[in-house]
Amino acid sequence: MEFSSEEMSRLNSNSLYQALGIVVEEAKGGKARAKLRPVSTFCWPFEGQPHGGILFTLMDTTMAWAVLTKLERGHNCATINLDIQYTKRAGGDILTCQAWITHQATRIIYVRADILDKEGQLTATGQGTFKVIRAPL
Amino acid sequence: MEFSSEEMSRLNSNSLYQALGIVVEEAKGGKARAKLRPVSTFCWPFEGQPHGGILFTLMDTTMAWAVLTKLERGHNCATINLDIQYTKRAGGDILTCQAWITHQATRIIYVRADILDKEGQLTATGQGTFKVIRAPL
Amino acid sequence: MEFSSEEMSRLNSNSLYQALGIVVEEAKGGKARAKLRPVSTFCWPFEGQPHGGILFTLMDTTMAWAVLTKLERGHNCATINLDIQYTKRAGGDILTCQAWITHQATRIIYVRADILDKEGQLTATGQGTFKVIRAPL
Amino acid sequence: MEFSSEEMSRLNSNSLYQALGIVVEEAKGGKARAKLRPVSTFCWPFEGQPHGGILFTLMDTTMAWAVLTKLERGHNCATINLDIQYTKRAGGDILTCQAWITHQATRIIYVRADILDKEGQLTATGQGTFKVIRAPL
Repeated sequence: MEFSSEEMSRLNSNSLYQALGIVVEEAKGGKARAKLRPVSTFCWPFEGQPHGGILFTLMDTTMAWAVLTKLERGHNCATINLDIQYTKRAGGDILTCQAWITHQATRIIYVRADILDKEGQLTATGQGTFKVIRAPL
Repeated sequence: MEFSSEEMSRLNSNSLYQALGIVVEEAKGGKARAKLRPVSTFCWPFEGQPHGGILFTLMDTTMAWAVLTKLERGHNCATINLDIQYTKRAGGDILTCQAWITHQATRIIYVRADILDKEGQLTATGQGTFKVIRAPL
Repeated sequence: MEFSSEEMSRLNSNSLYQALGIVVEEAKGGKARAKLRPVSTFCWPFEGQPHGGILFTLMDTTMAWAVLTKLERGHNCATINLDIQYTKRAGGDILTCQAWITHQATRIIYVRADILDKEGQLTATGQGTFKVIRAPL
Repeated sequence: MEFSSEEMSRLNSNSLYQALGIVVEEAKGGKARAKLRPVSTFCWPFEGQPHGGILFTLMDTTMAWAVLTKLERGHNCATINLDIQYTKRAGGDILTCQAWITHQATRIIYVRADILDKEGQLTATGQGTFKVIRAPL
């Protein structure tokens, strides 16, 4: 699938991304990039730091978009497993996640992702497997 | 640490849990149990199903509480890594996560968790490692 | 699949298991149990302790046998991913691995396993995903 | 630690690597590279393909060497967890593993690795965490 900027805007306007502060900026050729502008509600237990679950949501989301770029219309993907490692406390007002496919089998797709802070330092890194399912986007 | 019901109420009242619908019900002896009442804002892209990142947040949270029961006051924990597997779509109006320590080393604690739906079916399962840090709860 | 004791003996006689000291003892109803009698060649860098890769081989093997019990003849399985955690140094002259299916989807099977030492203490624990493939056993 | 070629030869001569066909070729600056020349004994159940546990041993080993390059003499490392993904069947007479540190905390080190076949295709990929221990190499 390729996504027009209109379609990306529409997809970015969903309630989950809006509430958490996630914006998918690019998704093309097996790669995707998304940003998180931390919302204080979800910065707990450490002020100014999004909960690890919010970082995970950012990562899982960005990975899924990387996968979507390799699927035909009428298909979507579901996470089989995702192993996330937290390397450094997530500070600052913006975090960037980059995800890329490492291998595409028939129905299983392998993806990696890094979350970087504003200074480009690694905050979290992960690898996951996704399965292709029939479902409209 | 042991938690009085007053303390648990206070800890459960944080903005993250309130927004996502998480309530920690029990934490004792290396085990913890928490519930998620899915909030529609976070049920995307599939209506009625909390996003995988919300399930992850529930799991990570429950694991952390299991760890806290084995720490001295003045300490907290941080996730080193967590591998989550999604086994079945998360339906229904309530999900329960149970977490338990499998091994406690000096500064690293190993934890497992299952998320079950209302019918007791496994929705997600995971294992993680946590490190002990000095920080007030 | 169900395995007769003759078939298990035959399968246990392969060069890999023989060299490493692995014997699968039981495989039935989505569960399997195998033993490792550490061979000194593979106890490196710590004398008397099988290398983590040998423990992994024991775990991956036992998980695969648990999966096989749920497949039709003419099928086999392949590991998609396996996350292993090492909790305690593996000492003693025998280690036991127990594996069990946690969820079986159409083509993907989720499995967990524990490796225990002679005293029943947890040495390693893991979770993996396997895909079903068409191949004779 | 830095390793002279004499020291690497000595370390490469251990019984485990010799039996499995592993040779560590380079370890420097947080990175390491090792090769596996598959031994038929360990190519089971598929002829010509090393068992997944042998690939894991290659990966875990290469990661550990990457970690060692950042430790002081008198220290060694132990795997906390390692998540390996198998992307493609491992064929050919030589496989190469490259490992690199993604983050180094005080006592926990995060590492990634890829195993490539002769044609440079990804056969397995993984991420792990290691703890620093006091032990002579």
